[in-house]
Amino acid sequence: MADSKRITMKDVAREAGVALGTVSKVVNGVPVGKSYQRRVEEAIERLGYRVNRQARALRSNKSSIVEVILPDLHNPLFARLADCLCRELSRRSHQMLLFLTKGSFDLEQSYMLMSEQQMVSGIICLTLNPKVRIPGDIPTVFIDRNPGPGIACVTSDNYGGGCLAAQKLLENGCTRLAFLHTASSLHDETGKRRDGFVCACTDAGIPFRCECLDDGAPDSALEEFLRAHQSEGRLDFDGLFCATDHLAHSARRALNQMGMRVPEDVQIIGYDGAQRLGDQDLCCSTIVQPVEEMARLCVELVLQTSSERIPCLHQLPVCYAYGGTTNR
Amino acid sequence: MADSKRITMKDVAREAGVALGTVSKVVNGVPVGKSYQRRVEEAIERLGYRVNRQARALRSNKSSIVEVILPDLHNPLFARLADCLCRELSRRSHQMLLFLTKGSFDLEQSYMLMSEQQMVSGIICLTLNPKVRIPGDIPTVFIDRNPGPGIACVTSDNYGGGCLAAQKLLENGCTRLAFLHTASSLHDETGKRRDGFVCACTDAGIPFRCECLDDGAPDSALEEFLRAHQSEGRLDFDGLFCATDHLAHSARRALNQMGMRVPEDVQIIGYDGAQRLGDQDLCCSTIVQPVEEMARLCVELVLQTSSERIPCLHQLPVCYAYGGTTNR
Repeated sequence: MADSKRITMKDVAREAGVALGTVSKVVNGVPVGKSYQRRVEEAIERLGYRVNRQARALRSNKSSIVEVILPDLHNPLFARLADCLCRELSRRSHQMLLFLTKGSFDLEQSYMLMSEQQMVSGIICLTLNPKVRIPGDIPTVFIDRNPGPGIACVTSDNYGGGCLAAQKLLENGCTRLAFLHTASSLHDETGKRRDGFVCACTDAGIPFRCECLDDGAPDSALEEFLRAHQSEGRLDFDGLFCATDHLAHSARRALNQMGMRVPEDVQIIGYDGAQRLGDQDLCCSTIVQPVEEMARLCVELVLQTSSERIPCLHQLPVCYAYGGTTNR
Repeated sequence: MADSKRITMKDVAREAGVALGTVSKVVNGVPVGKSYQRRVEEAIERLGYRVNRQARALRSNKSSIVEVILPDLHNPLFARLADCLCRELSRRSHQMLLFLTKGSFDLEQSYMLMSEQQMVSGIICLTLNPKVRIPGDIPTVFIDRNPGPGIACVTSDNYGGGCLAAQKLLENGCTRLAFLHTASSLHDETGKRRDGFVCACTDAGIPFRCECLDDGAPDSALEEFLRAHQSEGRLDFDGLFCATDHLAHSARRALNQMGMRVPEDVQIIGYDGAQRLGDQDLCCSTIVQPVEEMARLCVELVLQTSSERIPCLHQLPVCYAYGGTTNR
């Protein structure tokens, strides 16, 4: 160990006959040509070279690790977000330390404070606790939550997305609309989905209703809501906007079980653009969040030096995608 | 900083009026009662206490970080695996440093070697490169790949799963079977899915065929395969076992586009048990991998001290689940 610590990246570059930058790339997991990769790896092995990132972090008081806090990876949106964040961090020679909270306020807080112990170089988080305490000296980027001046927030254009959902339902011939969400599906910035929807309905002068389902038992609350609005085999609305694709998927299933046809009897639009199986089809017609761009911006913001950083609300544009639950 | 470094966990415990173990739990993100959580957090804040894990790692030559290497999080199976691994590591006061390779042999190798630099306490990996070099002194657990004696491998009972798929198709009335895979869907241990399928077909004395689709263009290879086996609107097999749910999903879609009905004209069974949207329905009838148990075992094995560790092949039992692409 003592010997190998004296070997530097320069020694490896000399041994491999490549530029210092090439060694740095290989060591940091940045792709290089295959033959370079092999030469550097062989030189590293011959010399017994090791970068000790922990020692480096201790010296510089900064590591190449970024902490990412998400609710879970069951939700395809979060899985895709984690996937894009991980790749984007790798591309910039950083690594992702992932924490999952299942929406627990206490875990969100614990994980947030743990960042100081790991000396991470930044935090990217999607938390639900409106009062989560932020470690003062670590660059932090929030997703879908705007803690106010001094902290960056990346989100999709929730207000525009809400408007767009209402407009698309109207364009598809709907005349009475409804909006469904749960408390946890609408927090902070995502609450603007409802605001945009309400505004578009009001502007168009068409009747609408908004309903918040119980978070604890969304499926039975959903069925209760639908039954309350059904009479003589028909619903008293013909267009439904759901705060998430997950909710839209549940609504479609519940409606089918009640003998209603989607989109013939009622059209549904979700929000997220979550895909069912990898790069395959959407689970519903939906407002698509630009997840890749959101991840790229989060990483860019979190790695900026403090002098470059302009903390503010970044709202990225959304688009509509047909996914079988509307006429088109 | 200098001051805060002298504050110990004992000081925090005294200040908060709780046991030392409670402070340790909070600091390590292990859930404790809400009032304890708050008392400890407040004491930490009042005293300005910080655990410096990097320094601790440097002293002990071991960190609380475990490196996890997976192909991606698009595939619901990998997302669920990452989700379970992350939670299980948290439960044992460890953190997950996640790397995604998209199946690149070079990235697999780079990330594997990076573990030495981060001084991680272990590696859990699902890699495709059969020749990936393993860092000698870091406990490593492979998923679905058995590098041989001395290294632990956790996988599902692929052979039993292959048998079960054939048996279920026969029970459902199929008389001529086919098996589909791509090169990357069958590597190392997962190749036993085919072996089990072949054995069950041979034992039952029924005709079958196995086909490997081109990894580069699986969708067009799939369509070509299906057209080659179709004549007068019928396929020359009526039961199809696919190496993954992803492939089963693609096959169902391609068959529908050709005007064939699933399960009326051909029944399909996949492998994985990946769920479409979180805890909701399966995308096909399938052989379900016990992902949660696999994750638990991986973490248990990787955190065992070397004296306890018995590296060997662990094959966890699978089960069949109906998901709409078979009669039952």
